[in-house]
Amino acid sequence: MNAVGTEIRGALLPQGESDTAVNVQIEGGAIAAVDASTGQETSPASGSGSVVSGTNKLLLPGFVNAHTHSSEMWQRGLIPMLPLELWLADLYDTSPMEPEMIYLSALGTAVETLLSGGTTVVDHLAMIPGKELESVEAAVRAYRDVGIRAFVGPLIQDSNLPDSVPSGGIPRETQPYPMSTDATLDFMKTVIDKFHAPEDGIFIMMAPTGAQLCSDALLEGCVALSDRHSLCRHTHLLETKVQQMHAYEKYGHSAVEHLHQLGFLGDRTSLAHCVWLTEADTQILATTGSTAVHNPLSNLRLGSGIAPILKYRQAGINVAFGCDGAASNDSQDVLEVLKIGSILHNTTTFEYRDWISPRAAVQMAAQGGATGLGLGDRLGKVAPGYSADLVLYDLTSLSLLPRTDPVGLLVLGRPTQVVDAVWVAGKPVVVDGNVTTVDVEGLTQALLERQQKFPSLTTRAEMEPHYRHIMTLAD
Amino acid sequence: MNAVGTEIRGALLPQGESDTAVNVQIEGGAIAAVDASTGQETSPASGSGSVVSGTNKLLLPGFVNAHTHSSEMWQRGLIPMLPLELWLADLYDTSPMEPEMIYLSALGTAVETLLSGGTTVVDHLAMIPGKELESVEAAVRAYRDVGIRAFVGPLIQDSNLPDSVPSGGIPRETQPYPMSTDATLDFMKTVIDKFHAPEDGIFIMMAPTGAQLCSDALLEGCVALSDRHSLCRHTHLLETKVQQMHAYEKYGHSAVEHLHQLGFLGDRTSLAHCVWLTEADTQILATTGSTAVHNPLSNLRLGSGIAPILKYRQAGINVAFGCDGAASNDSQDVLEVLKIGSILHNTTTFEYRDWISPRAAVQMAAQGGATGLGLGDRLGKVAPGYSADLVLYDLTSLSLLPRTDPVGLLVLGRPTQVVDAVWVAGKPVVVDGNVTTVDVEGLTQALLERQQKFPSLTTRAEMEPHYRHIMTLAD
Repeated sequence: MNAVGTEIRGALLPQGESDTAVNVQIEGGAIAAVDASTGQETSPASGSGSVVSGTNKLLLPGFVNAHTHSSEMWQRGLIPMLPLELWLADLYDTSPMEPEMIYLSALGTAVETLLSGGTTVVDHLAMIPGKELESVEAAVRAYRDVGIRAFVGPLIQDSNLPDSVPSGGIPRETQPYPMSTDATLDFMKTVIDKFHAPEDGIFIMMAPTGAQLCSDALLEGCVALSDRHSLCRHTHLLETKVQQMHAYEKYGHSAVEHLHQLGFLGDRTSLAHCVWLTEADTQILATTGSTAVHNPLSNLRLGSGIAPILKYRQAGINVAFGCDGAASNDSQDVLEVLKIGSILHNTTTFEYRDWISPRAAVQMAAQGGATGLGLGDRLGKVAPGYSADLVLYDLTSLSLLPRTDPVGLLVLGRPTQVVDAVWVAGKPVVVDGNVTTVDVEGLTQALLERQQKFPSLTTRAEMEPHYRHIMTLAD
Repeated sequence: MNAVGTEIRGALLPQGESDTAVNVQIEGGAIAAVDASTGQETSPASGSGSVVSGTNKLLLPGFVNAHTHSSEMWQRGLIPMLPLELWLADLYDTSPMEPEMIYLSALGTAVETLLSGGTTVVDHLAMIPGKELESVEAAVRAYRDVGIRAFVGPLIQDSNLPDSVPSGGIPRETQPYPMSTDATLDFMKTVIDKFHAPEDGIFIMMAPTGAQLCSDALLEGCVALSDRHSLCRHTHLLETKVQQMHAYEKYGHSAVEHLHQLGFLGDRTSLAHCVWLTEADTQILATTGSTAVHNPLSNLRLGSGIAPILKYRQAGINVAFGCDGAASNDSQDVLEVLKIGSILHNTTTFEYRDWISPRAAVQMAAQGGATGLGLGDRLGKVAPGYSADLVLYDLTSLSLLPRTDPVGLLVLGRPTQVVDAVWVAGKPVVVDGNVTTVDVEGLTQALLERQQKFPSLTTRAEMEPHYRHIMTLAD
């Protein structure tokens, strides 16, 4: 993913509380130099390649879309307003069933991430039953084609969906999961061998669905494999009240304590949601150096709650932002996540000095995201030695006018078509506002032509009475 | 604002829980007929004018942007994360000071409203001190030029900003407001005479800033004038906890009770925010037929709180959506407000059957908005006899693909550049995705060229110690 000798000249770079015009040299995929721009530079940089004008443009490090499920693009807009557990039932019943669809939705996820300022995507990848390897292959191929940095964590589990809801003491029949724990771990070994290629920007992660759907043997196997291959770990954590109740029923203590006991937490571990943590859980995340991935839009859409992000920041926990899958958001616009994921928390305390500023949000999305992937020392900052994962925003776009505080308006406004250029590891991926590596028109046409035939939904109806009972909702 | 003989052919119209292809006839500014489309119509409608293809398009009634302050466009992105009362201090210190700027920001507000599905704007208009009439003239001229339906309510008050915060028993010196109560009411008589022109889609409203900044004499004068001229009434209501405290200090009872005693409430009254109402207040809104305007984004941005919209709906209160001014949002994207204003409330109850569905959100934004302006019987529905305020959305846009539930994806997704055509009272205002009535490129250029010089901020520093004392925030 390398390219040499690009200079971005005269772009506005946020530094502290103000912005400075800078020239940025990109060499060998990394940032070679960041210098103050005098506005007087006229000749091309010595001996090097292209010069890109940064005039009237804002330069930021690329954001990390730190939690998503790409294949949900096929179901976005589809599922009505439901809490996670019942929403999941509809999701399972309407999942895409062809690897080519996985390819297209990964492409779409990457395109929307890039065009909203993201340069890295963490795909907690739902796979087609029986075509697991083809599913991973399709997603990886899409990310290679488009040239986005991608962390792909196949969604693995060894329990069925209905078992993710507490029994509440009511006896129930548990069906064995179609793939055994050992077969799943063997599958992951194959995935790592075939696809893990950090030098190409493709990283495989160990990403069990969540404690509520995994045996200890599976979680321990994930820890062992991730340690052996220096992989990141990723999982859903306490997204809903039901999951909190479930952990106490299953373990007798919190899911955080349990993951900690199994060695799952650590500074290469990122945890999606973290809505229902206790004070003790919060301390465990802080002391283990784990990252909380905030997905404000899906947490609202599914009624999961408001993750106590201000408390996490005060406890010293690294926080990143994720779009979550497009069926619970229902978009992959990273800037939208920064906006709502910032302002949402202003309602949780009157102490406005603790509120997340637009500049803090940008830092969380870039540096926070990189840190959660174990790359905090080489990704997520515009500084020499860091990977050239960069985004230029067009400050002459109507939605970024008038010129007040560009970072403030980018985060708090509703920017449309403002991403002018994107580089991933120094390679141009978006030029003049268009993704140049793949055929976006062709993607649009393919999505338009594939009117998915959704089967009749059955799982939700089966689960709903028990769900309402557990949540003490009236009939 | 009339045009005759347009037919929209074969557009998808939401009806109940599904969508139907329809042909819509527009005549004399109103909808003449809505018929099921057979897909077989080939010849132009008999004797009439233009035919517009609705193939692969979704047809909705235009939304009402039911609360905004257009001139805040000049300050969007500018003000840091602050609660309303301190944010207002910065807002006052940085207000635009030329009528031409009011014109441009009203134009920008209209353009962004139209391009996100709105056909009506309620502009609670901040005016330039000493140039009040020119300010109103500039905004009205902009709305006439662009052709949006506009309700313009000059922001009037007779107290100064520091008086909007409770004294907390600490003696303070109150400065007289620059314009007297009588002069303000005389000014409003002139505004009504000069600008109120419902037949042209320009409606003047009586819109005092809020009880916290108005004497009873001013509020009573507003009621009298609005009754005499059949005008709508509009005001801010209990946006913050401070305002709730202030009302009890000022009146000894709630602001809602007070407005009710003065005759301000009723079925032509819309009330922005309604965050801090009691159960008794809620009942008063319901029995008076008043409308609550939900501004979720500014309520989050300013940390005002989450308005209990689900409770209002259960109490039978009409609810509409507003963007609020662009300095507290910081955008005028109505679709963004529908999304967040729906999903935000899913965190307030586990009873998901009470959550706002995308179809309900569309109805609130269109019919709810029209009802709050006393036009519920002729605006906000795609039905014969209703005004032809219509929006066609392009369902081939990447952000609305794949085709699942178009209304679901429009509301819950992040649609970009999806508005294909807009009519206001039958007149085309947006064609092929572009506003055709005004020069949007010229507007962009004007915003780019006017780099406003902001004066040094002084008011916030003066107010902050008292604010923190009142809110019992540590020093």
